[in-house]
Amino acid sequence: MFKELCVDTKCYIGLDCGGTKLSSALFDSQGNMIIEDKTLLEKASGKEVADLMSRLILSMINSAEERNLDVLSIGICIPGIVYHDTKNVWAPNIPGWDNYPLMSDIKKAINKDIRISIDSDRACYVLGETWLGNAKGAQNAIFVAVGTGIGAGILIDGKILRGHGDIAGATGWLALQRPYDKKFDSCGNFEYYASGDGIARTAKVVIADLKDYSGKLDPESLRSEDVFEAYKNDDIVAIKTFDICIELWGMATANYVSLFNPEKIIFGGGVFGPGAQFLPRIMDEAKKWAQPISIMQVSLEASTLGKHAGLIGAGRLAMLNT
Amino acid sequence: MFKELCVDTKCYIGLDCGGTKLSSALFDSQGNMIIEDKTLLEKASGKEVADLMSRLILSMINSAEERNLDVLSIGICIPGIVYHDTKNVWAPNIPGWDNYPLMSDIKKAINKDIRISIDSDRACYVLGETWLGNAKGAQNAIFVAVGTGIGAGILIDGKILRGHGDIAGATGWLALQRPYDKKFDSCGNFEYYASGDGIARTAKVVIADLKDYSGKLDPESLRSEDVFEAYKNDDIVAIKTFDICIELWGMATANYVSLFNPEKIIFGGGVFGPGAQFLPRIMDEAKKWAQPISIMQVSLEASTLGKHAGLIGAGRLAMLNT
Repeated sequence: MFKELCVDTKCYIGLDCGGTKLSSALFDSQGNMIIEDKTLLEKASGKEVADLMSRLILSMINSAEERNLDVLSIGICIPGIVYHDTKNVWAPNIPGWDNYPLMSDIKKAINKDIRISIDSDRACYVLGETWLGNAKGAQNAIFVAVGTGIGAGILIDGKILRGHGDIAGATGWLALQRPYDKKFDSCGNFEYYASGDGIARTAKVVIADLKDYSGKLDPESLRSEDVFEAYKNDDIVAIKTFDICIELWGMATANYVSLFNPEKIIFGGGVFGPGAQFLPRIMDEAKKWAQPISIMQVSLEASTLGKHAGLIGAGRLAMLNT
Repeated sequence: MFKELCVDTKCYIGLDCGGTKLSSALFDSQGNMIIEDKTLLEKASGKEVADLMSRLILSMINSAEERNLDVLSIGICIPGIVYHDTKNVWAPNIPGWDNYPLMSDIKKAINKDIRISIDSDRACYVLGETWLGNAKGAQNAIFVAVGTGIGAGILIDGKILRGHGDIAGATGWLALQRPYDKKFDSCGNFEYYASGDGIARTAKVVIADLKDYSGKLDPESLRSEDVFEAYKNDDIVAIKTFDICIELWGMATANYVSLFNPEKIIFGGGVFGPGAQFLPRIMDEAKKWAQPISIMQVSLEASTLGKHAGLIGAGRLAMLNT
């Protein structure tokens, strides 16, 4: 079986650390997954997660050796930020990962002469999509991850945009609607209204404005999934909520287009998903606002890699840093 | 004299083509101008401007040879876009420069083995500022040129951001205030209200809203310079106009910060200039909106190079492409 998949004996390990689970895979040079594995984190904290990652990597190296494959490089995707001078990491959902020496820990545990690279989830998403997904081959692409929050992985001439302090792509903080309101303090204006949590917040505002609403959406227990469900039944609150979100997603898209002049913009994360049905309307809105030549040069796509984007991106990260 | 300036015999030619004049200079490796020259364009069109540029370059090469200096490279700043595959140029204010083969023309006319580089004015501005100006040494910096229109030169890890079609940095098109209005069609939402022309447009709206305004600003003949002048005398229209513009400049700044995580943002162009007095208020506004860690890592500055930014940037462009 693997002889068909592998044209040579080179392979790469990808590891995707989410908030609740670790996924790992052995990739061949074409991006085929030779082995894939998943482990729940079960509320493990900083050092435990690092140890678990090291064990998974060693297990993948063993599996590769049993198949006479050479592991050329290891790529790790983490749900936070990597500081590129120290390779320490920060991740809000892993207790203890506040400037945590992840690279140092794993290098010690692996103790082999194999290159290890670590990058943020949003960086890995755009690497994955430009390797095997809907932005395949693009050198200038943006992955907009719309889930609980909103972040972006930005690829420029084939390289990840990091910025001066490794926190570029914080697109949830886009200013799109003046004047400022204190309620944007914790997450930013764009994310406040148009993330997964934002969809629920926007729907609550819409319900409060509609004095005679008699539909099924309950402002007390509302989640974005409920708004998508209600939209299927032409619920007026859901329609008005997505009118607002589409306008904001379109304005953000226009801003990426005018500033970056990208070839592809990929919407992914839990909201896209079901939000993919709105991409044509998002593009129509973006066309109003964006630099008019630049908008003709971009295409807007939904992620096809879905939940695999981080793992595939980690594999690509390994391959690019061999 | 030049022996004091030049520590070696290497030098570089910079040429800045504005809408109305050509500036040229011979630079040493430290950025000192050994010779500087200016020529009015006097409504010359495409081929004439190219020929004039070639003559100026040949004259600079002769001057260098008379001083026993070696011209290592030539950099050219143009008021438009350079297509990086063909090196053809587009510039709205030079008649006939619509996909014009400028590089090919100049190479033929010069007929020497000296490397020639051409880039847009906004690219040269940021190169100039990071070489000798207020962003000296920065690898991640943005130059926001606010004049008749608004454009940005964006430097990422020491390289100019070009985008897929060489039109990145079209920041005048930023979407900052929903809903869309047809009047933004020709220049974009941000530029409509906050460029030099935008300041005048905003002031007219403010006057129309103030029914009892008895100040000196006349909506019929209003220019941005008049609004700056009236601001000195606490004119209510000027105060309200700049309140709006400062809010928009601050939101745009916040968006650069959240997306790019830059080290320096330089405001320049004709408006900054007198607009430099507002930089502390622009920063206060940006702090409300931007990613909170990223905004602590950036400083906001006015251009110190002023009208020389393009010429100095052209010199830097030459040096970087030796």
